[in-house]
Amino acid sequence: MNSKGHKKLIEIAEKFYDQFMEGNVPSMQLPTRNKSNIVYDEDLKVWVYGEKNTTRIANNIGGATKLLKASFTIEFLTKQLNENRSSTLRELYYISESWREKEAKFTAQEESNQLIEDLEIVSGVRREDFHMRPEESGATVIGPLKIEEKTRRGEREIHCQEDVGEGGYQIPANTDRIKFIDHSADFVMAVETGGMRDRLVENGFDEDYNSIIVHLKGQPARATRRLIKRLNEELSLPVLVFTDGDPWSYRIFGSVAYGSVKSAHLSPELATPAAQFVGIQPVDIIEYDLPSDQLADADINALKSELQDPRFQNEYWTKHL
Amino acid sequence: MNSKGHKKLIEIAEKFYDQFMEGNVPSMQLPTRNKSNIVYDEDLKVWVYGEKNTTRIANNIGGATKLLKASFTIEFLTKQLNENRSSTLRELYYISESWREKEAKFTAQEESNQLIEDLEIVSGVRREDFHMRPEESGATVIGPLKIEEKTRRGEREIHCQEDVGEGGYQIPANTDRIKFIDHSADFVMAVETGGMRDRLVENGFDEDYNSIIVHLKGQPARATRRLIKRLNEELSLPVLVFTDGDPWSYRIFGSVAYGSVKSAHLSPELATPAAQFVGIQPVDIIEYDLPSDQLADADINALKSELQDPRFQNEYWTKHL
Repeated sequence: MNSKGHKKLIEIAEKFYDQFMEGNVPSMQLPTRNKSNIVYDEDLKVWVYGEKNTTRIANNIGGATKLLKASFTIEFLTKQLNENRSSTLRELYYISESWREKEAKFTAQEESNQLIEDLEIVSGVRREDFHMRPEESGATVIGPLKIEEKTRRGEREIHCQEDVGEGGYQIPANTDRIKFIDHSADFVMAVETGGMRDRLVENGFDEDYNSIIVHLKGQPARATRRLIKRLNEELSLPVLVFTDGDPWSYRIFGSVAYGSVKSAHLSPELATPAAQFVGIQPVDIIEYDLPSDQLADADINALKSELQDPRFQNEYWTKHL
Repeated sequence: MNSKGHKKLIEIAEKFYDQFMEGNVPSMQLPTRNKSNIVYDEDLKVWVYGEKNTTRIANNIGGATKLLKASFTIEFLTKQLNENRSSTLRELYYISESWREKEAKFTAQEESNQLIEDLEIVSGVRREDFHMRPEESGATVIGPLKIEEKTRRGEREIHCQEDVGEGGYQIPANTDRIKFIDHSADFVMAVETGGMRDRLVENGFDEDYNSIIVHLKGQPARATRRLIKRLNEELSLPVLVFTDGDPWSYRIFGSVAYGSVKSAHLSPELATPAAQFVGIQPVDIIEYDLPSDQLADADINALKSELQDPRFQNEYWTKHL
């Protein structure tokens, strides 16, 4: 049983109970989780949630339903921890369909994912400590790095170049089970797309340039971001982020280097402020006369949204966006 | 240089040229690629394309544009083979934006993917021989199986239980580079979702039941289907397919066991007719009073489409669907 996650969840439930007993309307306070409320932490050099708060309060149907869902989820999680089991985020969404209270059922997986993040923030415990896993992301590592992964089957020492196929070493959901044993790398190359990652591997880029190639697989999973941060901090390796040249790519870089809006409460553990951008810049398309695609409306909205995103408010990004 | 793929591509281009020189309108004949034209091959026990043909002919703008795109793609592929390079399907789509003839640009990746499949059918050569790769699928294997993968860095012997982390061994795009060295498995368990795969691994299912767990990752990539077929045929291992209980899951099973509609020209190499279904059956939901979700319109359409799908025209499936 995981005592820390369990204890914190019970505390939240107890608070609801106390509020009821004192004749107060139960409520839960959270930082506002959108880009209007992320601020730059000068010490940590990452973006975290600011001072603005949102209160979920049971004095209207919407608020009451949210707290009902939170209660059922807390019950589910404590039971899971008692039985030493784990689930994925997707499973929680489906499992909610069998809850006796129909109102507690989630309408979309987005909603249950967000609630788990809310509980992380309120409890100060990461979802790994609730035994909640994401769907496997399939992101991989290849390069001159020897790790030890603590598995339920004992320790495994794996050299991420010599002991793996061309697919590389698969990053597990909980990267804190990995210990770095040895390496001879000069830097980390984090790559957005599988095609580019495969081409670099095909050309022996990791061998010729002593680099650790990490596949981001689009918007990178927490485990991938955590691993990049640890490679940067524990092994003092520079990190380069290589993306496509489209509006979404800048967000991918932002989530690696600055911290993501959705999980800004974890930025200190997940973001790598020293990461550098080496993708195609919009100005390169003009300077090198590269072929380009008409931006779709969704792309233009993404750009507009980035221009209002506090993480991109510096000279470099406002010019390029 | 890959001589087989190259030779076949040039032959297609030469045929267009000859048609022009003889004063004929260039055309290309293909089997009709939808579920109305797949037939069961009694010998191979898989579904392949039937007798119906579709002709792409340049006597109208639509047909002419299709052949123009085919010509540009053939030029791109032969150049790539000459230079011994490779690309992904997604890259081909983006690269078409830089082609000098604007009309040859693909409107969606779906279109360029389909054209590559068309060229496979006409040439009788697989896209691997054109050096075209899919985006990495991230599907994995874990279990008592020792393989040797031929990589550009030499041969790698990997035991898919002892030499990997909990993420498992990553299936490479070209599984024909894998040789089976040794195994002590009783059967193969192919699993649709990452959550279920992780739970089985967490519970040591592969160790307790001597099974090789293959993660399908939704609709499985060609490489995954090819590997399953090889495990079945070369090692005589029974294959169980474990899916969710929704209309899409039956298609996933269908593509593993019967062959997929999209790549029916490759069914003899990709489909595993001996595969057995062990997922949730619709009747189980009623018998065991399982919680279920309202089917969305898209789900109902998927079911209707399956009822008209020749692969599902047997007593078992018509009853359950």
